[in-house]
Amino acid sequence: MSASGENLQIDSGRLWDSLMEMAKIGPGVAGGNNRQALTDEDGEGRHLFRRWCEEAGMTVAVDSMGNMFARREGADPDALPVHVGSHLDTQPTGGKYDGVLGVLSGLELVRSLNDMGIKTKHPIVVTNWTNEEGTRFAPAMVASGVFAGAIDEEWAKSRQDAHGLRFGDELKRIGWEGDEPVGRRKMHAMFEYHIEQGPILEAENRQIGVVTHGQGLRWIECTLVGKGQHTGSTPMYMRRNAGRAMARLIDLVHEIAMRHQPNAVGAIGHIDVHPNSRNIIPEKIVLTVDIRSHLLPVLEDMREEFLARAPGLCAEVGVRFAAGIVGQFDPPAFDEGLVKVVRDTAARLGYSHMDIISGAGHDACWVNRVAPTVMIMCPCVDGLSHNEAEDISPEWAAAGANVLLHSVLEVAGVVA
Amino acid sequence: MSASGENLQIDSGRLWDSLMEMAKIGPGVAGGNNRQALTDEDGEGRHLFRRWCEEAGMTVAVDSMGNMFARREGADPDALPVHVGSHLDTQPTGGKYDGVLGVLSGLELVRSLNDMGIKTKHPIVVTNWTNEEGTRFAPAMVASGVFAGAIDEEWAKSRQDAHGLRFGDELKRIGWEGDEPVGRRKMHAMFEYHIEQGPILEAENRQIGVVTHGQGLRWIECTLVGKGQHTGSTPMYMRRNAGRAMARLIDLVHEIAMRHQPNAVGAIGHIDVHPNSRNIIPEKIVLTVDIRSHLLPVLEDMREEFLARAPGLCAEVGVRFAAGIVGQFDPPAFDEGLVKVVRDTAARLGYSHMDIISGAGHDACWVNRVAPTVMIMCPCVDGLSHNEAEDISPEWAAAGANVLLHSVLEVAGVVA
Repeated sequence: MSASGENLQIDSGRLWDSLMEMAKIGPGVAGGNNRQALTDEDGEGRHLFRRWCEEAGMTVAVDSMGNMFARREGADPDALPVHVGSHLDTQPTGGKYDGVLGVLSGLELVRSLNDMGIKTKHPIVVTNWTNEEGTRFAPAMVASGVFAGAIDEEWAKSRQDAHGLRFGDELKRIGWEGDEPVGRRKMHAMFEYHIEQGPILEAENRQIGVVTHGQGLRWIECTLVGKGQHTGSTPMYMRRNAGRAMARLIDLVHEIAMRHQPNAVGAIGHIDVHPNSRNIIPEKIVLTVDIRSHLLPVLEDMREEFLARAPGLCAEVGVRFAAGIVGQFDPPAFDEGLVKVVRDTAARLGYSHMDIISGAGHDACWVNRVAPTVMIMCPCVDGLSHNEAEDISPEWAAAGANVLLHSVLEVAGVVA
Repeated sequence: MSASGENLQIDSGRLWDSLMEMAKIGPGVAGGNNRQALTDEDGEGRHLFRRWCEEAGMTVAVDSMGNMFARREGADPDALPVHVGSHLDTQPTGGKYDGVLGVLSGLELVRSLNDMGIKTKHPIVVTNWTNEEGTRFAPAMVASGVFAGAIDEEWAKSRQDAHGLRFGDELKRIGWEGDEPVGRRKMHAMFEYHIEQGPILEAENRQIGVVTHGQGLRWIECTLVGKGQHTGSTPMYMRRNAGRAMARLIDLVHEIAMRHQPNAVGAIGHIDVHPNSRNIIPEKIVLTVDIRSHLLPVLEDMREEFLARAPGLCAEVGVRFAAGIVGQFDPPAFDEGLVKVVRDTAARLGYSHMDIISGAGHDACWVNRVAPTVMIMCPCVDGLSHNEAEDISPEWAAAGANVLLHSVLEVAGVVA
């Protein structure tokens, strides 16, 4: 092996074992995981991750949003650290890989450097961002958003879950509110390795996705209010059925997304029907529209068109419409220099690769606002993610982790 | 007052007080009631009703489905009893009147006869049918269905609620599984007094609805299976969004009902979306279609058309469709003789009245199969029912109760 570690590879078996060990915490009902943010299981996963980091010689700091930073010192005391990481929390019916792969590949990267006695100029910090998923506490990526100065910390901590529990209280309850003020860390670079969560890499038969842009997102929470009458004894012409208004909005979102192809997407994944009884016409429906594009003007067009047309479509069936934005971020373009490092590294290591746009939001999209940032992706089977059936192969996981390792080495600088 | 009690009126203040007293048990969150079948609150309501019946000199029997029968003896030991009653259970967000009015008007009728020392030839039995609503345990009207021999008792008792609790176990748990075998009672006649649960009587400014027919019903539970992919990273053309299939079925049900006017109705009130997350395309949706008509051929046409067209509409958007019937009854025509008694009584007492079809299903619809049966309705404000805002006036309640009283007296025969 050369001094620059050119032939170095991560230990793919050890990486896989770590993934499987973490997946034992907060098991799902169908082979995946339910380790939602700020649950007891999230706390347990964090303890395991901290123990592993400390065993690998790192020191772990925690900020007041619960973000975890495990640091391996560099040779140059003045050099800013290179961050690698993602998130350990999952969807309620989430997979075992999602963001976990990125966090544990960062850990594995450090273990591999330790094994080979390689020292870098810049420190390396393996990061676990709190509540990336945002299913228990909306919005998603809230803690990296606070870190990037885009979201107010007090507001974030006042968010409530479906039972009225507050983010800040739950973070304290599980013991992971740290002392470090959020957002003070300067970074030399930030790498996030993540599974694609989409079907493109597998369909194109590529091992590595070099992420050039992320998609921007708007979450529009809509409340439709009709009249909760009896389904049998209310004549059709007297009805104000919130369900019919919902059907029109589902069609509208689809139509708008299709008119903004390629790349734009839109759907309604969250739908709560009240009172949700077989013999009562839906009185109130709360739903969230998810629209995305990597082009800001397209995203704004889609949002404006939806909000312009939705009230009329609902009014035509006697249903009142109200809406508010409950999640948003503008499309990020990742650091061109780091994108080139990842692309060149993949090529040098002989992996098939392609540039892609991340359809999903990621912590990297926020951090990109305050530090040079890039993402690396590996395929996932059938494009399935946020699903307990989410799957990747150990070879896919290792390929991305090797690209991560060598990209980080290039940026962090090998000194011994 | 004549011997036939021609000028007798129920005590409308006492009836209203009973309604308000019962409404204290299982209060809702918005002024109505949540006293769902076989909950602790249902048990408590039954105890109060039994106490009132015993205080009025009646003896209370309970059958093995939990149906309650409070009997006031008649003068003729061989005469079959005249039943009056309805149900005390409510929707999860139900009103205070619904079926409760019919049960407590039966009680008030007996109290009034006691006050005036009036004896009838036929016994009078005030009845509370178990689980009319069917929201906790589908189907609705299950205990009167077992009574009428249309539903198997063991099957009914094996029904489970959303937590997997069995009907039979819960009936035992609250202490209301009686010794009497179900369905052995013979009746001279059965009267059910109920609020309209629709807007017609109020819109037509009539005090009394003389119910000539009930609507038949089919509940079709549909399961739509798509793919629970990430809302951001799945290209539009690769999606199998169960939500889009649902939107098509909502439109289909509406279209079919509109094509079978007048009187036919259709809606989808029950919708469960899985996993119901803002950034996951709906993977599975379970919903129940409710279609009704008072004409059996129309009802069958509607059902057939829905089941013929739904699979194709779903398949066009890549979603699998499966369906099963989870509730059904054929349209009843009530006893012509009893209908005439109610119509003539309303006219004689000077109440404005009209013939109507009951859009809702009622226990009377099942009992009609085994005994001469009729229903009496009073208006409800704005046609609103199965809603905590359900409202009636004390005058409306009293008018219907007086028609009930004098109709029962005519059929049961006044002897002193």
